[in-house]
Amino acid sequence: MKTVTCTAPVNIAVIKYWGKRDIDLILPTNSSISVTLSQDILHSKTTISTSPEFSQDRLWLNGIEEDITKNKRMHNCFRETRAIRKEMEDKAESAGSPIENLSTYPVHVCSENNFPTAAGLASSASGLAALVYTLSQLYELTISTSEVSRIARQGSGSACRSLFGGFVAWEMGQKEDGSDSLAVQIAPETHWPELEALICVVSDAKKGTSSTAGMQSTIKTSPLMNERINHVVPARMEQMTKAILDKDFQSFAELTMRDSNQFHAVCLDTYPPIFYLNDTSRAIIQLIHEYNATSQDGKLKAAYTYDAGPNAVIYAPKENMAEIIQLIGHYFPSNKEPTAFFADPYQVVNGSLGQDFVPKTHVNFNQNVVPVQPVNSVSRLLHTKVDDGPRVLDAEESLLKADGLPKRLA
Amino acid sequence: MKTVTCTAPVNIAVIKYWGKRDIDLILPTNSSISVTLSQDILHSKTTISTSPEFSQDRLWLNGIEEDITKNKRMHNCFRETRAIRKEMEDKAESAGSPIENLSTYPVHVCSENNFPTAAGLASSASGLAALVYTLSQLYELTISTSEVSRIARQGSGSACRSLFGGFVAWEMGQKEDGSDSLAVQIAPETHWPELEALICVVSDAKKGTSSTAGMQSTIKTSPLMNERINHVVPARMEQMTKAILDKDFQSFAELTMRDSNQFHAVCLDTYPPIFYLNDTSRAIIQLIHEYNATSQDGKLKAAYTYDAGPNAVIYAPKENMAEIIQLIGHYFPSNKEPTAFFADPYQVVNGSLGQDFVPKTHVNFNQNVVPVQPVNSVSRLLHTKVDDGPRVLDAEESLLKADGLPKRLA
Repeated sequence: MKTVTCTAPVNIAVIKYWGKRDIDLILPTNSSISVTLSQDILHSKTTISTSPEFSQDRLWLNGIEEDITKNKRMHNCFRETRAIRKEMEDKAESAGSPIENLSTYPVHVCSENNFPTAAGLASSASGLAALVYTLSQLYELTISTSEVSRIARQGSGSACRSLFGGFVAWEMGQKEDGSDSLAVQIAPETHWPELEALICVVSDAKKGTSSTAGMQSTIKTSPLMNERINHVVPARMEQMTKAILDKDFQSFAELTMRDSNQFHAVCLDTYPPIFYLNDTSRAIIQLIHEYNATSQDGKLKAAYTYDAGPNAVIYAPKENMAEIIQLIGHYFPSNKEPTAFFADPYQVVNGSLGQDFVPKTHVNFNQNVVPVQPVNSVSRLLHTKVDDGPRVLDAEESLLKADGLPKRLA
Repeated sequence: MKTVTCTAPVNIAVIKYWGKRDIDLILPTNSSISVTLSQDILHSKTTISTSPEFSQDRLWLNGIEEDITKNKRMHNCFRETRAIRKEMEDKAESAGSPIENLSTYPVHVCSENNFPTAAGLASSASGLAALVYTLSQLYELTISTSEVSRIARQGSGSACRSLFGGFVAWEMGQKEDGSDSLAVQIAPETHWPELEALICVVSDAKKGTSSTAGMQSTIKTSPLMNERINHVVPARMEQMTKAILDKDFQSFAELTMRDSNQFHAVCLDTYPPIFYLNDTSRAIIQLIHEYNATSQDGKLKAAYTYDAGPNAVIYAPKENMAEIIQLIGHYFPSNKEPTAFFADPYQVVNGSLGQDFVPKTHVNFNQNVVPVQPVNSVSRLLHTKVDDGPRVLDAEESLLKADGLPKRLA
């Protein structure tokens, strides 16, 4: 039995992916750019064992066994990686130095997120990235990371961006077979270490439209979507790439906020309309704009972005992060234990949340723009940073036992 | 002393006006279409007296005296109507049958809304329409109603649409001086008597961006706005006009909802973004879509629209209105006295609000889409209908006494 365990990170787009031009191959209608967040805080972890003695492919997700044959997109990832392994095996055979026929053995896959799937934190992206990266390691595929990302894309579109650390572009590609639709790294995590992120988990009674269904509805019905796809995003891809390479937070922040808003605008222009932002999301947006408006030197200090849900991700330079955390803590009070509300492995602030706080240096700060919100409107704050791509873990980290069955079941 | 008293109605757009190409003349970036709602429920009432013995122009709004010289837009309306009166006086003089030189006398203006201005029910439109219509009557101007609307437009853009009953288009015009930017009636109120409206007044803690500032910000910063102005609205103007002439509720409803959503979408695409819809507005939108989805014959049964605020106006055929009122009453419960919550001069429903109610014929109705909302999320329901344009009232309805001063002060 051969076993490999890996983790893959969450990525949060700053130029949004919304719309597929090919649903089966998961080919997008526009390119996108994301930032990879630290696996110290959020990750998907996958162990895959393969053995000729296994009777069939099996899959456990967060401790529950699922029917692997029913997940077409996951199946595509197995098919693609096995095909490449098979080619390697055939070549090695022809060359007279055969390698093990792993491509013919069944696999046992066990995958977990270290955060609740329900939190809406792009778990499918990190999950599929971890799956495909682990397969590529298990099969010792001699392909580039971008090639691995091309396979992950077929499992979950934005998963392709979780194959790299740092700042990542998903180039939409032009070809019908999708062979040029893959992720490339714009810059590694070491390029701009001052950039950090704060995730605000926002409570919401109602589950929004699934992004898979939502994006196709937007393409079919929004009269504004073509303008976004054909003109706005291509220009923003260039501008955002430049902002990242130049470590120009001013441009990065404005583009990030504008693109998040435009994504939600085309959702609203969809018929029937799709809503992901709620009153809490809206209050965070208004608070960040007010915070930026108080900047002494006219420079933006923070930027928000929202995926297909109400949670905010706030990007900001490290120097502003303590202030931002205290600001959010003031306007979105929690009655939880501080450690249950706020995760801050980087120890930026210590015990100052939950007190009345308005940044003292901001004389223009207009507290009336956003009133203090109901308790627990924001249920959790996670402070994180830009970090690396998938990691291969030691054998002791395996989620599967020596018999190929999970160590833990739900 | 000569005195005239008139009322003017509220109009609610179904193709939205958002954006000025000339701020001083109030010339819009696109044409728009509205429905005039009954003055039985909502109106602005204006009395104007003029006398050579008045010492100066004076103005009372809702019982409070205001400085008439400080309101530039209102001033434009006085200037324009007086100029036309002056021309008439000069002509009459030349013809040897002079008329009274009313254009040279000061005026006393007293105006009231029969609904709270703060309710966000387009009070400036009805207010300016009442002012200009009363001036036109006072001066016995021999100009068409469209000409009167051209003057009202300079007081408050959408006021021009309140000069007509029924279904009204504001043609944006092309000329720089605005002489072709005025309202025309698409069809009178008698054309489609089955169409009724329900106004849902939605509580909101926060005052949104003023529409005057908001629309110019959208024009300057939204990359999607040009597509709306140049392509989407011109096509919808034709489609909506046809839908109204054909009394085609299916097309009317879909266009109304799509255009409301697109207006709020370009607000969201504005930088910084503008929000008018809140969680209650969103819940009403989702409820109406769910209600339409349960239609037995696949036909739409109701349509929502939102102006620059959280209040919903629901248009629906008379036959569905009792059901809609009960549906809103169920999902948006009130703890007020029924008469304080619900105004229904047409006696469509009697005493059935406040009880648990789900339309029995709608087996597909999914109550989980929208949970029952917090008490008083909707603070008031007003049932109204399509109705006539400005009315001239009897002398006894005057808001001014024989001495030219208000009967009531606040």
